Amino acid sequence: MYSRIMDYGKKALEKHALLKGKIAISLKDAPDTAEKLSTYYTPGVGAVSSRIAEHPEEARDYTWLNNNVAVISDGSAVLGLGNIGPQASLPVMEGKAMLFKHFAGIDAFPIVLDVHTADEIVTTIKAIAPSFGGINLEDIAAPICFEVEERLKRELDIPVMHDDQHGTAIVVLASLINACKVTGKQLSECKIVLIGAGAAGVAVAKLLHLYAQPNIIAVDSKGIINIDRTDLNDEKRQLLSFSKQTKSGTLADALLGADIFIGVSRANVLTKGMIKTMSKNPIIIAMANPVPEIMPEDARAAGAAVVATGRSDFPNQVNNALAFPGIFRGALDNRVTTITDEHKIAAAQVIASLVEQPDAEHIVPSVLDPRLVPAIAAIIR
Amino acid sequence: MYSRIMDYGKKALEKHALLKGKIAISLKDAPDTAEKLSTYYTPGVGAVSSRIAEHPEEARDYTWLNNNVAVISDGSAVLGLGNIGPQASLPVMEGKAMLFKHFAGIDAFPIVLDVHTADEIVTTIKAIAPSFGGINLEDIAAPICFEVEERLKRELDIPVMHDDQHGTAIVVLASLINACKVTGKQLSECKIVLIGAGAAGVAVAKLLHLYAQPNIIAVDSKGIINIDRTDLNDEKRQLLSFSKQTKSGTLADALLGADIFIGVSRANVLTKGMIKTMSKNPIIIAMANPVPEIMPEDARAAGAAVVATGRSDFPNQVNNALAFPGIFRGALDNRVTTITDEHKIAAAQVIASLVEQPDAEHIVPSVLDPRLVPAIAAIIR
Repeated sequence: MYSRIMDYGKKALEKHALLKGKIAISLKDAPDTAEKLSTYYTPGVGAVSSRIAEHPEEARDYTWLNNNVAVISDGSAVLGLGNIGPQASLPVMEGKAMLFKHFAGIDAFPIVLDVHTADEIVTTIKAIAPSFGGINLEDIAAPICFEVEERLKRELDIPVMHDDQHGTAIVVLASLINACKVTGKQLSECKIVLIGAGAAGVAVAKLLHLYAQPNIIAVDSKGIINIDRTDLNDEKRQLLSFSKQTKSGTLADALLGADIFIGVSRANVLTKGMIKTMSKNPIIIAMANPVPEIMPEDARAAGAAVVATGRSDFPNQVNNALAFPGIFRGALDNRVTTITDEHKIAAAQVIASLVEQPDAEHIVPSVLDPRLVPAIAAIIR
Repeated sequence: MYSRIMDYGKKALEKHALLKGKIAISLKDAPDTAEKLSTYYTPGVGAVSSRIAEHPEEARDYTWLNNNVAVISDGSAVLGLGNIGPQASLPVMEGKAMLFKHFAGIDAFPIVLDVHTADEIVTTIKAIAPSFGGINLEDIAAPICFEVEERLKRELDIPVMHDDQHGTAIVVLASLINACKVTGKQLSECKIVLIGAGAAGVAVAKLLHLYAQPNIIAVDSKGIINIDRTDLNDEKRQLLSFSKQTKSGTLADALLGADIFIGVSRANVLTKGMIKTMSKNPIIIAMANPVPEIMPEDARAAGAAVVATGRSDFPNQVNNALAFPGIFRGALDNRVTTITDEHKIAAAQVIASLVEQPDAEHIVPSVLDPRLVPAIAAIIR
């Protein structure tokens, strides 16, 4: 397994060195005559700028604002790599821009930030916001990401979504809708153990709570999040209201009798032994990247009824790429300026509905499924 | 003439409404298989990010940084339209990005800013600078543009150029080198009247002074810039040192006996009568946009030996597009982080040299001349 990741890494380094950038700018027409230069640039373009100055609401009708999205990161929480800084995060952001273009036809490009406080990030993004039709926040560490997204949503009139939070929450909910079908569980009756209380974990817990009020026990690196903990930030504290359990303990303690394990934490924290203590037909969503909390074969060997990871080389890839292309496609096309909780739940239901006959190895569609983007975009209104 | 500009405006509005954005993002390869997703995105991309985190100097080798430039404006001094704000400036910035791509193969994209003080602009651009291989500042009003460019050049390690200043200065110098050949004048002996003491005017005066120390009389909307004026900003005050004349007066007063008129001001400020008071074989560079300081036919009728404008529909188009694509091409390819005065003079000489036999209607090459970019890029080292 590790050697397979090493292989991907080696191949990725080679390919990236060859391409020297995965994205480029292309032109919808070539300014190759004096006539075209006069139309696309001076003097003709002056009429277009004057028009927008007089009718600001028409900016989208004459520029690429109707189809562009900035992928913005400060490089503080990149994949499993942590705080590697803005420029080292660029390959990931270019990759995200690729997915935007390939899956949704959206002109996305990376903006990486050399500032890291919530105030600085918000101030910077607001200053450049007139350049974009939408903003996909990416790989910004918790808890700063919460304040950044909340303020930008409030203060800007374009769609803003922190994908690590909401993209993840949507695809986890989609996967659980179908995993419950496969196992005959009722999500609202389930005991869920969620490990990883960063950006993704908090958003997953909030959306699951909103959708079905299951019993959610959140666990972080210090153990079960309970009312006696004095080290919790506001967001983690909010999770307490979703948990009927208030006992302390380890992940293993939390998992006793649990129906569902959701991991957005780190490699190999879940053991076969722990799975064996869970309820019958447990569901394992192990999304740590690139190495999941437990390998699928081990989870199945320990009795898991359904196993999903974030990886494309295993069945059941619960990956944000199922959601964000369609969400932004819909927001841009339908001029939706705020992605709401209702949008997120509807998107999860749409994703789940695209699997006609869910089974243990098919709880979500492939990220390459061409029905995804139009189906999700249609409900972002 | 005005109706021709109206025609361009009408056509531009139609074309822009049709294209809805002149630029787009394209992909160097499609992430259309699980294998490619694993190479360009997770898990493979993690190895590329790790590599750059360890070797920051290699970021250009694995990302589009080696070929991208941000076209950044706050929309405060756009074409002849003035302070129309960031979003209304977008069509111009997209147009500039088109020229970058078409002429130099550079992946340029617009960033328009909703902040307008020098401090805010510098802070914002520094915050997003890790996203770019170079920065083309565009249409930022004087005197703020001077401080912004100076500070960014000092504080960033990528090439930064305010094109309204230096692109203009380079092409004006190039045009004068050949116009002097055509008229038999010595630039160092010339009396030059320069109207418009904003970003472009100041930079033009500085570069001409550096190149040949001609007698330069600068004129702004209040008349000749002289030592008795108490309303001058630092940059305008600096122009005083380039002028042997210190008398006060109007543009007409300044032009008595002058060899060269350079206009970077506004439509129709130069009259036939004024040209008739200039020295023999006067040179008229009338760059106001879109309507020049005098129409070429009027200037010639009044005795001008050489007339140039910024427009593509007249002979002698003295346009920044002659210079900036090659300058940034060279800076990116040769890893030049500072565009120096020596670079600017050398670029002007290269541009002038591409006209084998200068005559009254051919003092600069066409902006469509394919020799321009490689020739200029070669001397940016």
